[in-house]
Amino acid sequence: MKHEIDLAKYKIRTDLMSEMLDQEKVSGYTREQVEEEGIIIETITLTEEAAAKIHKKAGFYQTLSFTDVTDKKNYQALERVLEKYFHLFLDREKISSKANCLVVGLGNHESTPDALGPLTSEKITVTRHLFSLGLDVDPKYRSVASFSPGVFGTTGIETKEILEGLVEKIKPDFLIVIDALAASSIERVNHTIQLTNTGIHPGSGIGNNRKEISKETLHIPVLAIGVPTVVDAVTIVSNTFQYMIKHFSYEKENKDKPSFKFKSFGPRNYQEQADHLNKEEKEKMLGLLGTLSPLETKQFIREVLTPIGYNLMVTPKEIDFVIEKLSHLLSSVLNKTLHSL
Amino acid sequence: MKHEIDLAKYKIRTDLMSEMLDQEKVSGYTREQVEEEGIIIETITLTEEAAAKIHKKAGFYQTLSFTDVTDKKNYQALERVLEKYFHLFLDREKISSKANCLVVGLGNHESTPDALGPLTSEKITVTRHLFSLGLDVDPKYRSVASFSPGVFGTTGIETKEILEGLVEKIKPDFLIVIDALAASSIERVNHTIQLTNTGIHPGSGIGNNRKEISKETLHIPVLAIGVPTVVDAVTIVSNTFQYMIKHFSYEKENKDKPSFKFKSFGPRNYQEQADHLNKEEKEKMLGLLGTLSPLETKQFIREVLTPIGYNLMVTPKEIDFVIEKLSHLLSSVLNKTLHSL
Amino acid sequence: MKHEIDLAKYKIRTDLMSEMLDQEKVSGYTREQVEEEGIIIETITLTEEAAAKIHKKAGFYQTLSFTDVTDKKNYQALERVLEKYFHLFLDREKISSKANCLVVGLGNHESTPDALGPLTSEKITVTRHLFSLGLDVDPKYRSVASFSPGVFGTTGIETKEILEGLVEKIKPDFLIVIDALAASSIERVNHTIQLTNTGIHPGSGIGNNRKEISKETLHIPVLAIGVPTVVDAVTIVSNTFQYMIKHFSYEKENKDKPSFKFKSFGPRNYQEQADHLNKEEKEKMLGLLGTLSPLETKQFIREVLTPIGYNLMVTPKEIDFVIEKLSHLLSSVLNKTLHSL
Amino acid sequence: MKHEIDLAKYKIRTDLMSEMLDQEKVSGYTREQVEEEGIIIETITLTEEAAAKIHKKAGFYQTLSFTDVTDKKNYQALERVLEKYFHLFLDREKISSKANCLVVGLGNHESTPDALGPLTSEKITVTRHLFSLGLDVDPKYRSVASFSPGVFGTTGIETKEILEGLVEKIKPDFLIVIDALAASSIERVNHTIQLTNTGIHPGSGIGNNRKEISKETLHIPVLAIGVPTVVDAVTIVSNTFQYMIKHFSYEKENKDKPSFKFKSFGPRNYQEQADHLNKEEKEKMLGLLGTLSPLETKQFIREVLTPIGYNLMVTPKEIDFVIEKLSHLLSSVLNKTLHSL
Repeated sequence: MKHEIDLAKYKIRTDLMSEMLDQEKVSGYTREQVEEEGIIIETITLTEEAAAKIHKKAGFYQTLSFTDVTDKKNYQALERVLEKYFHLFLDREKISSKANCLVVGLGNHESTPDALGPLTSEKITVTRHLFSLGLDVDPKYRSVASFSPGVFGTTGIETKEILEGLVEKIKPDFLIVIDALAASSIERVNHTIQLTNTGIHPGSGIGNNRKEISKETLHIPVLAIGVPTVVDAVTIVSNTFQYMIKHFSYEKENKDKPSFKFKSFGPRNYQEQADHLNKEEKEKMLGLLGTLSPLETKQFIREVLTPIGYNLMVTPKEIDFVIEKLSHLLSSVLNKTLHSL
Repeated sequence: MKHEIDLAKYKIRTDLMSEMLDQEKVSGYTREQVEEEGIIIETITLTEEAAAKIHKKAGFYQTLSFTDVTDKKNYQALERVLEKYFHLFLDREKISSKANCLVVGLGNHESTPDALGPLTSEKITVTRHLFSLGLDVDPKYRSVASFSPGVFGTTGIETKEILEGLVEKIKPDFLIVIDALAASSIERVNHTIQLTNTGIHPGSGIGNNRKEISKETLHIPVLAIGVPTVVDAVTIVSNTFQYMIKHFSYEKENKDKPSFKFKSFGPRNYQEQADHLNKEEKEKMLGLLGTLSPLETKQFIREVLTPIGYNLMVTPKEIDFVIEKLSHLLSSVLNKTLHSL
Repeated sequence: MKHEIDLAKYKIRTDLMSEMLDQEKVSGYTREQVEEEGIIIETITLTEEAAAKIHKKAGFYQTLSFTDVTDKKNYQALERVLEKYFHLFLDREKISSKANCLVVGLGNHESTPDALGPLTSEKITVTRHLFSLGLDVDPKYRSVASFSPGVFGTTGIETKEILEGLVEKIKPDFLIVIDALAASSIERVNHTIQLTNTGIHPGSGIGNNRKEISKETLHIPVLAIGVPTVVDAVTIVSNTFQYMIKHFSYEKENKDKPSFKFKSFGPRNYQEQADHLNKEEKEKMLGLLGTLSPLETKQFIREVLTPIGYNLMVTPKEIDFVIEKLSHLLSSVLNKTLHSL
Repeated sequence: MKHEIDLAKYKIRTDLMSEMLDQEKVSGYTREQVEEEGIIIETITLTEEAAAKIHKKAGFYQTLSFTDVTDKKNYQALERVLEKYFHLFLDREKISSKANCLVVGLGNHESTPDALGPLTSEKITVTRHLFSLGLDVDPKYRSVASFSPGVFGTTGIETKEILEGLVEKIKPDFLIVIDALAASSIERVNHTIQLTNTGIHPGSGIGNNRKEISKETLHIPVLAIGVPTVVDAVTIVSNTFQYMIKHFSYEKENKDKPSFKFKSFGPRNYQEQADHLNKEEKEKMLGLLGTLSPLETKQFIREVLTPIGYNLMVTPKEIDFVIEKLSHLLSSVLNKTLHSL
């Protein structure tokens, strides 16, 4: 009953570079991590060579990882840190303080986990009309327009077509694109913001393959802000396997310590948990499954769930409250950094 | 204390041709009226000459007038009648059954009385993406795309600029544009649908002057569907003056009939009420106001209310329920007539 | 054509005591006015005697009048002033800092101009469940529950019945009731907050006559917060008549001043404008209408509009944005004053 | 590394009796299954004895299982079948056609997966107010009221307290309670409706333990309609294990058939798939995990995920569209069956 897995058969559902690099073995990138106010900021620059191997685009990727954004203190810390890093991002991309901006909110405002883009773009302080009416605008403000193109399924039009037409008409100096993404780990969902200069593929995270929105296709810088709000069942199961291995490792390592029995059901953090199990132990625990690599595990689970229709894309049940907070956060930070408020 | 009114000072707030012609004295148009299932259908064709005089566009204007659309029976009758007249409208404009359509919902989905366009466009059955993916589409369907450009105040972009870009990109054969309008009579609000081949001026009804969306500017037929959902205080007051005159006329005409005292407070219909008051009677009742023409009355009221900031644009308090029904009605009729359902 | 008006025939649609007293000639009340941060605070205490005459309840009525609440600076000033006066109101009513509170949001969350109550009550920081679970709650917090009973038309149940049942069950020490009201002047709509210790009559402002929610019926203090969000056509027309008279008075008084021609269309404020017209002048301008008292004018307009079905209840077209701000304002002030935040 | 599982430690998260009986080994119930228009109707009657063993209530449980409700044909079939079975349910419970009904929509209208109750209750045709106003009501209608009590976390009040007060006040003859539930299998989510005469435990499915709403506590029949809209990560993982075993069984059984290679990735249905693996094969595939019972598997996964905070409650990403359809379905069926429409 040997199980050969064709790795090419299914694509990996993630829009986060940080997750891609955790899963794939490539070289040709730099990766740094710092922590500020409890938020982990990871910065990746990917070379053309490495990018080619994993079918992604070379460039700058930065993720901010945080805990519950519906908590007021977390929210405030995240707002401060994101404001700082978004400023640095604009500087890094050499966006001048006078450059005209078009903010684009991708996604479907009628579908809660996909509504982050539209809800953010609605709250942007637009000023382009003041400039175009020839008014004398306070120099703190730059020219900003904001727009939600809707989704392919309800407009019948590719997002890229709409944006190409609009960019030709109003000629912004750069684009900021906001989108909800798919995560490929449970812990990322609603807990990560990714900034990248490589643009975005609308719908790429959820199995579609719309055309790319990037500097290559629109000929102006495209700064993308993405937040994973959905995850598929394959990821949930696959993550759980890794946690099982960490669970056994933790118990093996700690079971003789006197404190163990008291800790048994308190909160645990496996972030730093090393894998102390040898191959035999894993096989004993998890059989053939224990011998698969994380990527192989995922492929196999996909092979089981897909034909029976249960590889659902899901979102945490609190999604309404999270999307509301995240859209306030992103619009507030964009308003402060695009204008000098 | 003679009061000279400069007629040019204020423009008249109405987007309904039928109302314009009630208020202005021009020649050079045809005007017909029929009734079906309790709905009044008025059809106007305006010559270039007449159009020039009232600063409107020559062409075809048709209004359907109906009572409460939240009543199930009224709704169903209106749906049948509108379907018939929209079909005739497409035929009249020589739109072939295979012509590609772009439906455009103008307005702000966050503002209830202005949300008719976006809410309708979201419910359109789009098929353009099926054709563009090369799928074998049932011949009952034509290629339809649907789009909401948002409003100038929240995007910072002229609607016309967005549509020009989009029309150049996706090259539809014709446009259907849906918008909420301003009425210039109380009885029109939420009770009239206007069809016209002259396009639309986004925001024109509410005091702004955005650029025209029409065949002249977009180079393809633009069929506009408008529903007045707001009315200004000037109109309410001015209408009331006319009703006062009709009220006195009615009482003068009827007060000696034995039945009069029983009818005093039942529902009255002044649609056919002639004006039996002579100049002296009007002046006695209403003073100098009684000597003004309807248009002069309106101008005068505007002169009183505008400087003190009370010429409010208002909407009936039941607007949420009305907009929901109207958006269902329009999308249902468009889906049935654009496709052969 | 003498026109005798039966004053009893129509009731006056207003829930604001300040407006009642402007319209009715009664004695037996105190009335004071102060201004803070641009907000006018008017405080009325009505004796039983005066109350009986105008069919209202004796007690304390306070209105805060302000300009556009969607303006950030106005909003912040109003929040400070309302917080101060709501604190004073709680003190005046001898509500102890430990008294258990039930906040009740009246109205229909599906109808924008009627959604103020439900939207406010949803944003209240509730703590009753923490106390009832026996948790050790920070002494800054009192026990607060919050509830929206819905409206008679969609529940089929009188609000008073629902509240009686609930008050018997959970035994709060006092109630705070929030409701949208009808105004009887244009300038009040969305620009006034009324605080009163006399409770509320759900729907009374809009022509219904639901049962009273007050200390008399529920046997605990009932503090009501009301904001007029709708106004009827009669009021708009009647107000405009008064403005016409002020307009003529202003012109009569100013027309010979050299500055007059330059001011003609700038913003005017008639707040302080005295009525300089004598009876003959009014009659010349407005005919018989000019000879009616404000109350008679209103009754007459009602007599004209009601039988033909055009005495609409309307709300300004910006209502969505106003209700959002007002519900944030009220919930924020209640959270700060009920708890010691 | 023996892993002893304390079965009492975690409770099983399901509100569906059909799922309980799949997981637990009890006797003392009848269980029947029929199919109509593609919908599976399963009927369970549970004796007191069996109920006691699984900590549930004795009584009648019926589930209707269906596929995608956003598909128009499925929706229409389901509406017909549910109407029939809800009629039979009313008959079975001996609810007379004149009995007064109170419909209660449990849940939080601000949280999409929890909004089914409130959204359904808002669309109920209420008539109680017509009867209570003494109007002459068409005999097709019974007296129906409809109400949404909100949720404990935002009201601070137990749902049961609110309902007790209300039932005492308005004295309905019976209650219909609608709630969103937690499922304990992936395939149930958004695909099952449960009818039961045993009432409901608000929040029981999602880890809370509010007080029971039932005939025992409210002293009138309580008919509950529940739809599972959320599922936890433990269930997703545990279900996947069972599918893995079925996957291997299927492959073992079919791999030598010539057709096998063609079917490999088409849709599969494991509903009828027997488990052909012996203990050794399972252990080889899945290690110790392969030797656990379904219930033990679940307990173990919970033990892994709970301490690290990843036992998320999730909902499919299309939840907005599903909830809209389901609330239309339930309200439509209730309106037709409660009244004789």
